[in-house]
Amino acid sequence: MASVSPTPVLKDELDIVIPTIRNLDFLEMWRPFFQPYHLIIVQDGDPSKTIKVPDGFDYELYNRNDINRILGPKASCISFKDSACRCFGYMVSKKKYIFTIDDDCFVAKDPSGKEINALEQHIKNLLSPSTPFFFNTLYDPYQEGADFVRGYPFSLREGVPTAVSHGLWLNIPDYDAPTQLVKPLERNTRYVDAIMTVPKGTLFPMCGMNLAFNRELIGPAMYFGLMGDGQPIGRYDDMWAGWCTKVICDHLGLGVKTGLPYIWHSKASNPFVNLKKEYKGIYWQEELIPFFQSVALPKDCATVQKCYLELSKQVKAKLGKVDDYFNKLADAMVTWIEAWDELNPSSASAEVANGPKK
Amino acid sequence: MASVSPTPVLKDELDIVIPTIRNLDFLEMWRPFFQPYHLIIVQDGDPSKTIKVPDGFDYELYNRNDINRILGPKASCISFKDSACRCFGYMVSKKKYIFTIDDDCFVAKDPSGKEINALEQHIKNLLSPSTPFFFNTLYDPYQEGADFVRGYPFSLREGVPTAVSHGLWLNIPDYDAPTQLVKPLERNTRYVDAIMTVPKGTLFPMCGMNLAFNRELIGPAMYFGLMGDGQPIGRYDDMWAGWCTKVICDHLGLGVKTGLPYIWHSKASNPFVNLKKEYKGIYWQEELIPFFQSVALPKDCATVQKCYLELSKQVKAKLGKVDDYFNKLADAMVTWIEAWDELNPSSASAEVANGPKK
Repeated sequence: MASVSPTPVLKDELDIVIPTIRNLDFLEMWRPFFQPYHLIIVQDGDPSKTIKVPDGFDYELYNRNDINRILGPKASCISFKDSACRCFGYMVSKKKYIFTIDDDCFVAKDPSGKEINALEQHIKNLLSPSTPFFFNTLYDPYQEGADFVRGYPFSLREGVPTAVSHGLWLNIPDYDAPTQLVKPLERNTRYVDAIMTVPKGTLFPMCGMNLAFNRELIGPAMYFGLMGDGQPIGRYDDMWAGWCTKVICDHLGLGVKTGLPYIWHSKASNPFVNLKKEYKGIYWQEELIPFFQSVALPKDCATVQKCYLELSKQVKAKLGKVDDYFNKLADAMVTWIEAWDELNPSSASAEVANGPKK
Repeated sequence: MASVSPTPVLKDELDIVIPTIRNLDFLEMWRPFFQPYHLIIVQDGDPSKTIKVPDGFDYELYNRNDINRILGPKASCISFKDSACRCFGYMVSKKKYIFTIDDDCFVAKDPSGKEINALEQHIKNLLSPSTPFFFNTLYDPYQEGADFVRGYPFSLREGVPTAVSHGLWLNIPDYDAPTQLVKPLERNTRYVDAIMTVPKGTLFPMCGMNLAFNRELIGPAMYFGLMGDGQPIGRYDDMWAGWCTKVICDHLGLGVKTGLPYIWHSKASNPFVNLKKEYKGIYWQEELIPFFQSVALPKDCATVQKCYLELSKQVKAKLGKVDDYFNKLADAMVTWIEAWDELNPSSASAEVANGPKK
C-alpha cells in the first residue's frame, strides 16, 4: 500500500481524463492517489459495451453516443477509434486542471523503491512557475534544494505561469514504429530526477499518456486532432496538440515543463500496427515541424481561442498543399473551438447542457 | 582507488587546463583519471611563487611573466588575478580538445557510490552529436538505453557536431553572491542522470569550473574576458564566454551540451568578496542577456574568428553605452583573436614561437 499525502491537493479543481476501450482495472493500483478525484472516462469504440470501473471511484463516463448527443454535428471534430477522443473530456470538464493518463500506465517507483504519486508531482509542476526565457543548468529552480545559478538574470526569476506538465515513462519507451522495430527490447530504466522548462521557441514531442495542464490557461489548444476511424493517420494526436500548444504558450508567455513524474508504461503496442498508423505522419512531420517552428501569431491574438483559430488558418494556407487531410484538420480545429465555446461559455459556472451518464 | 578504463580516450588529443594560485594537491584525487593526459597550468598572481605539481604528471606551466613574454602587448587581453586567465591555456594548446577544471573540484560519486570519471564523460559528450533544433524528452538520444522519441523528425536525428560539454557540480552549487548570502547552507545533492543539448536560440549560464570543448570547432570563442586586476567586475568570465560561444554555436550549427558529468565542488567562495566582484555584473546582465538574445550574425561569418570579431563590433556599438568597460572589452576581444591567430596559424602543425617553461 502506497503512502498517501493526507490532504489531496486541488481535489475540487482537477479532473482525471481517461480514454479507454476496456474495464478500468488499472485504477486499482492508482486508488491511493486517484480516489479523491473526479474521473472523466471517455469510452472509445463500441458504445454498447459496458466499461467496468472499480468501486469507490467518482466518475462520469461518455461513450460515442453521448459525444454525438452533446455535440451534435460538431461531434465530427472528436476522433473515433483512437485515444485522441480523450480531448472530449477536456471540453466537458469544468475544472481548472486536467490530468490525463492511459489505461496501460501503472505506478512507477523511484530509485529508493517508493511508489511515485504522479498526480501530486504534476500538481507541483503546474503550481510552480516555468522559466522559458533562459536555461537553468540546475533544472527547475523552484524545486527544493535548487535555485537559479550564477549568471541567471534576476529579472527573469519570477518565471511565468505553467500551462503544461509533461510526465515521462519508465519501462516501455514512447518510440515510433521504426524505432520499436529496430530496438524491440529497449526499456527505459534511467530515472532522471529533473523537471525542466522547454525553452521558448523550442518544440518538443508531447506524449499524451501522462500529461497535466491548466485548462483555464491552455485548454482550448489541447485538441488532439483527427485520428483513427476514417482518417489517414494515427498516433500523432498528442504530437499535434503539443506543437499547437507550445507555439501558443510561447506566444502568450506561458510555460511548458517536462520531466518528473514517471509512470510505469506496461505494454508496448504492436509496431506493425503502429507503422500503418504512423507512416504518413513520419514524412508529413518533416514539413509540420518547420511550419510550427516558423509560425508567427499576430499580437492581437490575446486568447487561446484566437490563437488557435489563427493557427487553423495558417494550417490550411500552408499545410493544405502537403495533403488535403490538413484542410479537413484545419476545419476540425475551428469546429473544436466552436464546440469548446459552446460548452464553456465565458461564465465559469455554466454547466454542460446535456448531462453525462453515470 | 577508482577503476580506470584501460585505454584513455583521446590521450594525445586533449589538454587539461587548470588555472591556479596554489599547489596542485587536488590532482592526487584525479590521478587515476588525469595522469595519462597533458596538463596546461596557468599560474595566476605572483609569478615568483612556486606552484608544486604532484609527481608523475606531464605538464607545462605558464605564469604572468610567460604570458607577457609570449604575447607581448597583446597580453593585455589576458586577465590577471582572476581565474579568467585560464583562457591563455586554450590559446597555447595545440590539441583538438580542452578540458578545464578548477583546483577546488574533486571526484564526485554517482548514486551507486562509484567515483565518476568526469573527463571520460566529457569526451563521450563531445564525441556524440547534439540536437539543438528539437527537444528530446528522453534527453540525450545517443546515450545507451535512450533514443529519439515518437514525433522526433527523422531528418534531425543525425544531430550536429558537439562543440561544448558543460558539466555540473555536487555539493556547493554555483550560486551568485545574493543567493549564497540568502541560502548559505544549501548544497546540491540531486544527481540528475541526464545530458541534454541546450536548444538553439536559448542562452544558458556556462560555468567554467568543469567544462570541455572542441578547440578546433569553437576555441577562438572561448575568451574569458577582462576580469580581476584593474577591472570593474569579476565572476562573469565564464558567463561571457558562454553567451558568446552559444550565439556563435547557434549561428554555425554546432551543439552545446549540459548535464553529466558531476564533479564535487568542495568549498564555497566568500559571498561578501563575490558580491563586490559581481554587483556590476548583476545589473549589467539585465542588458547583456537581451543583447545576446537578439544578436544576429551575418551569413558570411563562416568561421569562429569572423563571428567573434563581428560580435566584438556589436558589443562596442550596443553595450558601449551601458558602460565604457564594454568598449575596452570589445577591444580586448579583437586582441584575443589576433593573439589566437598568431599562436595558431592555419597550419595545424605550427608551434608556439616561445616555448613554455616546464
